[in-house]
Amino acid sequence: MSVGQTASGREALAIHYQAVRNLTEALAAGLSDADATVQSMPDASPAKWHLAHVTWFFETFVLRDHVPDYRLFDENYAYLFNSYYEAEGPRHARSLRGMLTRPSLADILAWRAHVDDAMNAALPRLASTARDLVTLGLHHEQQHQELLLTDILHAFSLNPLEPALFEAANALPAPVPGPLRWIEGARGLVEIGHDGSGFAFDCEGPRHPVWLTPHALANRPIINGEWMNFIADGGYADPRHWLSDGWAWVRDGGIEAPLYWRHENGGWTRFGHDGRRPVNPAAPVTHISLYEADAYASWANARLPTEAEWESAARTLAPLSGVQLDTAACPRPRACEHEGSHLAQMFGDVWEWTGSAYRPHPGFRAAPGAVGEYNGKFMSGQFVLKGGSCATPRGHVRASYRNFFYPHQRWQFTGLRLARDL
Amino acid sequence: MSVGQTASGREALAIHYQAVRNLTEALAAGLSDADATVQSMPDASPAKWHLAHVTWFFETFVLRDHVPDYRLFDENYAYLFNSYYEAEGPRHARSLRGMLTRPSLADILAWRAHVDDAMNAALPRLASTARDLVTLGLHHEQQHQELLLTDILHAFSLNPLEPALFEAANALPAPVPGPLRWIEGARGLVEIGHDGSGFAFDCEGPRHPVWLTPHALANRPIINGEWMNFIADGGYADPRHWLSDGWAWVRDGGIEAPLYWRHENGGWTRFGHDGRRPVNPAAPVTHISLYEADAYASWANARLPTEAEWESAARTLAPLSGVQLDTAACPRPRACEHEGSHLAQMFGDVWEWTGSAYRPHPGFRAAPGAVGEYNGKFMSGQFVLKGGSCATPRGHVRASYRNFFYPHQRWQFTGLRLARDL
Amino acid sequence: MSVGQTASGREALAIHYQAVRNLTEALAAGLSDADATVQSMPDASPAKWHLAHVTWFFETFVLRDHVPDYRLFDENYAYLFNSYYEAEGPRHARSLRGMLTRPSLADILAWRAHVDDAMNAALPRLASTARDLVTLGLHHEQQHQELLLTDILHAFSLNPLEPALFEAANALPAPVPGPLRWIEGARGLVEIGHDGSGFAFDCEGPRHPVWLTPHALANRPIINGEWMNFIADGGYADPRHWLSDGWAWVRDGGIEAPLYWRHENGGWTRFGHDGRRPVNPAAPVTHISLYEADAYASWANARLPTEAEWESAARTLAPLSGVQLDTAACPRPRACEHEGSHLAQMFGDVWEWTGSAYRPHPGFRAAPGAVGEYNGKFMSGQFVLKGGSCATPRGHVRASYRNFFYPHQRWQFTGLRLARDL
Amino acid sequence: MSVGQTASGREALAIHYQAVRNLTEALAAGLSDADATVQSMPDASPAKWHLAHVTWFFETFVLRDHVPDYRLFDENYAYLFNSYYEAEGPRHARSLRGMLTRPSLADILAWRAHVDDAMNAALPRLASTARDLVTLGLHHEQQHQELLLTDILHAFSLNPLEPALFEAANALPAPVPGPLRWIEGARGLVEIGHDGSGFAFDCEGPRHPVWLTPHALANRPIINGEWMNFIADGGYADPRHWLSDGWAWVRDGGIEAPLYWRHENGGWTRFGHDGRRPVNPAAPVTHISLYEADAYASWANARLPTEAEWESAARTLAPLSGVQLDTAACPRPRACEHEGSHLAQMFGDVWEWTGSAYRPHPGFRAAPGAVGEYNGKFMSGQFVLKGGSCATPRGHVRASYRNFFYPHQRWQFTGLRLARDL
Repeated sequence: MSVGQTASGREALAIHYQAVRNLTEALAAGLSDADATVQSMPDASPAKWHLAHVTWFFETFVLRDHVPDYRLFDENYAYLFNSYYEAEGPRHARSLRGMLTRPSLADILAWRAHVDDAMNAALPRLASTARDLVTLGLHHEQQHQELLLTDILHAFSLNPLEPALFEAANALPAPVPGPLRWIEGARGLVEIGHDGSGFAFDCEGPRHPVWLTPHALANRPIINGEWMNFIADGGYADPRHWLSDGWAWVRDGGIEAPLYWRHENGGWTRFGHDGRRPVNPAAPVTHISLYEADAYASWANARLPTEAEWESAARTLAPLSGVQLDTAACPRPRACEHEGSHLAQMFGDVWEWTGSAYRPHPGFRAAPGAVGEYNGKFMSGQFVLKGGSCATPRGHVRASYRNFFYPHQRWQFTGLRLARDL
Repeated sequence: MSVGQTASGREALAIHYQAVRNLTEALAAGLSDADATVQSMPDASPAKWHLAHVTWFFETFVLRDHVPDYRLFDENYAYLFNSYYEAEGPRHARSLRGMLTRPSLADILAWRAHVDDAMNAALPRLASTARDLVTLGLHHEQQHQELLLTDILHAFSLNPLEPALFEAANALPAPVPGPLRWIEGARGLVEIGHDGSGFAFDCEGPRHPVWLTPHALANRPIINGEWMNFIADGGYADPRHWLSDGWAWVRDGGIEAPLYWRHENGGWTRFGHDGRRPVNPAAPVTHISLYEADAYASWANARLPTEAEWESAARTLAPLSGVQLDTAACPRPRACEHEGSHLAQMFGDVWEWTGSAYRPHPGFRAAPGAVGEYNGKFMSGQFVLKGGSCATPRGHVRASYRNFFYPHQRWQFTGLRLARDL
Repeated sequence: MSVGQTASGREALAIHYQAVRNLTEALAAGLSDADATVQSMPDASPAKWHLAHVTWFFETFVLRDHVPDYRLFDENYAYLFNSYYEAEGPRHARSLRGMLTRPSLADILAWRAHVDDAMNAALPRLASTARDLVTLGLHHEQQHQELLLTDILHAFSLNPLEPALFEAANALPAPVPGPLRWIEGARGLVEIGHDGSGFAFDCEGPRHPVWLTPHALANRPIINGEWMNFIADGGYADPRHWLSDGWAWVRDGGIEAPLYWRHENGGWTRFGHDGRRPVNPAAPVTHISLYEADAYASWANARLPTEAEWESAARTLAPLSGVQLDTAACPRPRACEHEGSHLAQMFGDVWEWTGSAYRPHPGFRAAPGAVGEYNGKFMSGQFVLKGGSCATPRGHVRASYRNFFYPHQRWQFTGLRLARDL
Repeated sequence: MSVGQTASGREALAIHYQAVRNLTEALAAGLSDADATVQSMPDASPAKWHLAHVTWFFETFVLRDHVPDYRLFDENYAYLFNSYYEAEGPRHARSLRGMLTRPSLADILAWRAHVDDAMNAALPRLASTARDLVTLGLHHEQQHQELLLTDILHAFSLNPLEPALFEAANALPAPVPGPLRWIEGARGLVEIGHDGSGFAFDCEGPRHPVWLTPHALANRPIINGEWMNFIADGGYADPRHWLSDGWAWVRDGGIEAPLYWRHENGGWTRFGHDGRRPVNPAAPVTHISLYEADAYASWANARLPTEAEWESAARTLAPLSGVQLDTAACPRPRACEHEGSHLAQMFGDVWEWTGSAYRPHPGFRAAPGAVGEYNGKFMSGQFVLKGGSCATPRGHVRASYRNFFYPHQRWQFTGLRLARDL
């Protein structure tokens, strides 16, 4: 997965480095010191922590390990900003990340500048192994860009003032798309998984054959208007649609709608980065759990696609398409509003829950060393999501990309696309 | 999946009915009214509840629905002894099952006799649909036989007196088997899943192709002696071996050994149906969670088999073989002591954790009606186990059989067999 | 507090011993092995455990310590049936008492007979110190008689069948008493606390002066009819009446009525030892928490009496009066139905919550040795209740008697009497 | 309790108003926006919330209710910054106070300035009722000054960097005081409670007689050196010293020393507003729970004083004495280092746990209206503390002052003074 072996490759890496780092800071530009500090739940992290943790990655695995004479900016930061790398020693308890009022946001931005200076100086001279770690670190930082956006949205949602982080998109209202159409998928033996050309996370490979039985995928994700029908039809009140764990989750949590939805004055509103606004019936439904996605599919006499069905269908589509997070010039998740043809919106808009558990591909081996803790150890209890969302940095996602969350989690931009057997 | 269409088939069904019902009561014969009443944790149920619930199944789905003029033994019992069939109306809270001191054990045995009389009278006249429900009910009762044994073992383990339910097997000490040998599995396209001939639960089908990459399975399960090496090597103290959720489980629960093991006077003992005794190094390790199984495999530089690998290898083996639960004449789980050749102990001894999440086979459709709630709704968060255990009634299990538990659960007779890529 | 120094005193002690022991067994006579085993909440204990624990007290503190050559009935029982005496070594976890299906109820009754035989043989020869421990043990057993009754009631209340332990009293319906009247209490310096003559628990003394400001007590407890008015007036929905902790308790628990009350078919019913029956408007309200008692008093523009006010008023009243638990011939809590004159029902019927925290009287010193753990160590967070209830053995209670429970607890027969400042 | 009826009284009130408001802001001067926002536990509140809540009190109860044409600074603030006044309508959940990253610290300071301007304009014209509310509001704000200091200390203690809010006092090391001496207290009838002259909270009255039995108080609080002896003697490991609830608290929490103490390099350190430093053996022990105070007293063969004993002894002492929090020129809690004569350090240094539950004085009536929710509704489950601490604003405390906390709480500057019976 090595990149940048040539001079132009080195230059491209340096440019990419700067672009990613800039985008992260642009996303955080509207945050106050306090905004950047709080942690709204154990699943989420403070924005400041994201800004710091991704920097710790470069300082630790590139500068400390590969740049002679590099001096750590602050000896304490490794303890504070390691996430879960057991091999890197003890670390601050995850649930207490919100107590770190110091170092301040300004301190972290200064650290970022210090590391960026050292990285810029080092990049032209790094060996291939180190350059691969830089590339890994940039993809890692892109993941945290998305988490920064979804975590701050969750924190803001708990403030009764419901502040907006970004202004609303000035998009034209989208026309409500037509009824779902079914697109037949490949049958028989197909190959999925990353083939090793270009960057991929270790869990995306190896490439391997899978047998697909006859099936079809919906041409587009389920939209809010359809979800309102599910609600109106008593979808949240009928146990027959739900997985057993999902039904317990619905009752214990008093769940009646997607996260951030509220019924007021006879209609549904949702909270987003642009504040509270009416739900747009034409946009893909988002902020739903796997349980909700599965219940909807059951109600609709369909099912969720498997990862292999989804990936096989997506392989020839352009991963740069769709509504995704763009550069620092306009760093905000936009509404997801346009209808696609055939297999539309496979990339971007919303992460699509699949019916596949997040388990290793045949032949999977974790990367050696500390960075090998990256993916493999999370392979229990979670489901695979595919395709990226409006908060995924454009260029980050691939057909083989495997995102994963627990079935009850829904603070990401999660949605669903139906499948059915033929 | 209909059985018993002919006269001799009808007779066989009646004989099978009586044998299964008798075995259940034989298992409970050593229990006092109090033993049969208590519930040791929400995952477990009282023995009396098992005796009653399986009877409720026959009374509800066969006698009430298919036998004219049948009168319910007690109108209250449906509320008390429905497990989770939402379609059958409200029911007693699972966590309060241990509060049912009334009806007494004797009352439940009287109910059983009443239902058995009605069933024996009805069996010669039942239509095919109803006979299929009888067959389903008998397989259902066999599942609860195993649960009755593991649940009462758990309850007894919380009594400081550690009473024995059965006498110890008078088996000769087993020789410690030789080192693991690796048996290469099938490669390429294989078929797994039930083909529809003979009884199977809905989740076992349909039969479908799967592509297997080159791999080998161990010739036998991991044994206690090997597990002691894992402990001695610090296996429970090194996070590198563990799934992230598993490591949290180890630390939060202070886990240091399989369930029921205790270190005293320089050696390991375990609690079983025959009381507390020294751990037998030659017997398959049991009462381990998926997390422990996975950590052991990681420590041993191997992995868990997938369900397809396991099932493909087991397809030609005899499911009646191995140490399993036998008839009412000797109704107790025996020690699991003999070594096998080639692929030994695939059936019986211990349920083998696979690395496959419990999700539907391609094309799966739940059975219609209330009995359709049987399997499909549990398809999130659990892993598949294969092969049956020393507490599984002989004749109950098949290569396609899918048992499932959450990754932290270990009060069943659960063990592991290693696999590796070739 | 020594009793029985003379021959007739010795005889009286032996007779008292037998009467108390018999009553305990009479209370449990209607219980099955399973009934006697289950534990419905950590606050409660199994009936079998009560039967055993009070026996452990005599076996340990009298027979083991004062009778040469006495052999313990079973070495394991000390571990199982010590309640909380730290000085007596480790013990079975309180929350797991319901797992003791063995020893059986019959085993415990055999133990009781064994200890009774040894006690009867020893009583004529015991020294004064040991006789004092016997007396203490009998008062201790009387406390557990009441707990046995309230704990089994709680357990039965969790069984949807709501079984009755005793038949209903065949009492004539009581006339609804007239409106509350206020009886002025003593003013200025009074003495309360036990003066040392006759038996008392250590916490009842020493006798000491207290200054009472002008006040009056209600002539009788609040009755169910009045409580229904409180409910109908929105008493459970208005935070102004409630202590802050009480309001949190109401909301978190969804509390809307006394424990065991249910609204059905337009009226209130309650569950009792005689099963579920309509609430009797003339009987004292019971199964209320301190929070509810305090809220009622606040709603009624009154307050709870202090312990000193209550005890001062009760000093000249007969503690054997009122509805209390009587001998083994008719061992059941009866309905509490008759109205009294002046200060009626001070003893019996319901324990009356006072507004006084359970803290030591001035000069209190705990008794030495293990039995000194009896009372003093519970002196935080609890409130004093006075007067005994329909489930208190007649002869057990005194004006100086101090019962104590946490403010949220209400599974005892707890009620209230109003007081007000003059 | 009215003050300021004369012109000079009005002027004094205006001066007092400004002094209190200034001190609050001086205490918060070292806090960043993030420092002021986080909430470290449900018991604590963010510094920003304290700054805002005390301002809400003046804006609501004085400006809104008594100043015509006053316009609220922000309509949302009442919802955000009401603490627990049910009469004032719904409010933000206490446990979510730490999510209020907006309004910012600067916004709240602007609000404070706005309210101060309005108050300064209004003060000369306010009627007596309103002036009484101003006085109440100032005493209320002083309480929150202390809470602001203890809450931020708790938050900083959860940051591994353990930042210091203030520089250390430049005090000379205090000499270790001599052994405890016992000072005999008044006997017989004494009066305690506030007599109505000058300001007091409603719960401090009315004045009433209490009978004191012979007793003595220690001449000074227990000091750290003595506490280290308690630890070294196994005080935290011996259940005989502890209240039952306290022993459960010790075991469940793994408690081994006062809050903020740590054993490292062979000695004890503590965390304070001046960071982590060695424990000073001569200073009064602080940050202990009632459970710890009671266990120490039991270990020392003594007991805690009752509120009446303490108050009676303090009545003739000067409440302005001792180490307390001083004006804005030097706004920090200083170390508590000097020894006193006779009854030294009754005021200041540490809040002294009494053995008295926080219950109403005889004849207590809560103040009418919303401000009447101030004290009475907290009268269950808490204990009284007396005398103020190094973090109590000088001038705030009186002999009749009743502070109250739950027995497990210890993030305030809490200590103990021994008493014993004579």
